[in-house]
Amino acid sequence: MNIPEKTIERLSEYRRTLLRCHKEGITHIFSHVLAGIHGITAVQVRRDLMLIGFSSDTKKGYDVEVLIDFISGILDSPTPLNIAIIGMGHLAQAITKYFNGKGLKMKIVAAFDVDPEKVGKTIDDIPCIHMDDFEREVEHLDINIVVLACPTRVASEMVIPIVNAGIKGVLNFTSKPLNFPLGIVVENYDITTLLEKVAYFVKENEYRNDL
Amino acid sequence: MNIPEKTIERLSEYRRTLLRCHKEGITHIFSHVLAGIHGITAVQVRRDLMLIGFSSDTKKGYDVEVLIDFISGILDSPTPLNIAIIGMGHLAQAITKYFNGKGLKMKIVAAFDVDPEKVGKTIDDIPCIHMDDFEREVEHLDINIVVLACPTRVASEMVIPIVNAGIKGVLNFTSKPLNFPLGIVVENYDITTLLEKVAYFVKENEYRNDL
Repeated sequence: MNIPEKTIERLSEYRRTLLRCHKEGITHIFSHVLAGIHGITAVQVRRDLMLIGFSSDTKKGYDVEVLIDFISGILDSPTPLNIAIIGMGHLAQAITKYFNGKGLKMKIVAAFDVDPEKVGKTIDDIPCIHMDDFEREVEHLDINIVVLACPTRVASEMVIPIVNAGIKGVLNFTSKPLNFPLGIVVENYDITTLLEKVAYFVKENEYRNDL
Repeated sequence: MNIPEKTIERLSEYRRTLLRCHKEGITHIFSHVLAGIHGITAVQVRRDLMLIGFSSDTKKGYDVEVLIDFISGILDSPTPLNIAIIGMGHLAQAITKYFNGKGLKMKIVAAFDVDPEKVGKTIDDIPCIHMDDFEREVEHLDINIVVLACPTRVASEMVIPIVNAGIKGVLNFTSKPLNFPLGIVVENYDITTLLEKVAYFVKENEYRNDL
């Protein structure tokens, strides 16, 4: 199946909303309600779900539980994915705290760092291991994905260990975009970009209001 | 000018790379080099720059300094933007640390929290103020944009203070998507989505390799 990136993002967002609805005892939801929560159109929601082959009884809306399972069948791996974080700073700690006990099909199983204050300790239930042992531990712990949260100035140095260790996906939060060989999925995500985008559209809004 | 969101994101990324080049003493850069750094095609780079009306001497490539100034003219506000962070946890501290001394046209000037351990203190040079004083301080400090980094369970409660305070843009990192009245720019960004996206494409890659 060839699903666009943006649809994958929205499916992940829909599922999170549906899980919240399910927790609150809501059994059915209309496409326009789901759309409203996410600030998009009902047409968009229906198009996304049609794309993954989901159809539903439209009289009562979508069955929340059935839709959660359906989206999970698309997004999730058959076996849970093990994730490692490189660089156990504030961002990494925010992410691990956030993930703890979320019941996702992904688990942060280790953090790697070089700081003697952190290495050998367990932070938020995650063992912090020296970067020198990266390749060995990735194999040992069966890690598939890394989150790169180290300082930008050392980001490039992480490429070779990541490739050598056989990592399949990288979420890069440093401000240096990294390229990996074909077959390794990489998402470069600099928070500055998000803020600059918001700032730009704020400026454009004000300009329009001034007209 | 009507520039698509994705182009704005890329312009922000190009500029960061150009600033790094400039620092390293590089005066000119070809579109295919800039493209390679970002893992995209030269056609995409040229299309983005054409869209903002930038043309250059293609024999030597783009003049790095001129292009930085040109992109800045598009992205930046004429006056620096003041940003506040709501919720001074690990994520907020990662962001403020990251921003300190970057020389951007945006500045994080205050953090808001309710934790008595944090309120009244200065963390990473940012004063941490009680949420009760939000509206007053937003006016006093001339804040335009907020980064929402509070726990998800209280995210909805922030909407009214944000609207009342006259905030123009919101970058929401909680896992609850929020809607704001027209005229307020909002970007909902849940890190889980990014990880689920990487995980999905890793799974798809493996599936293709198995064929």
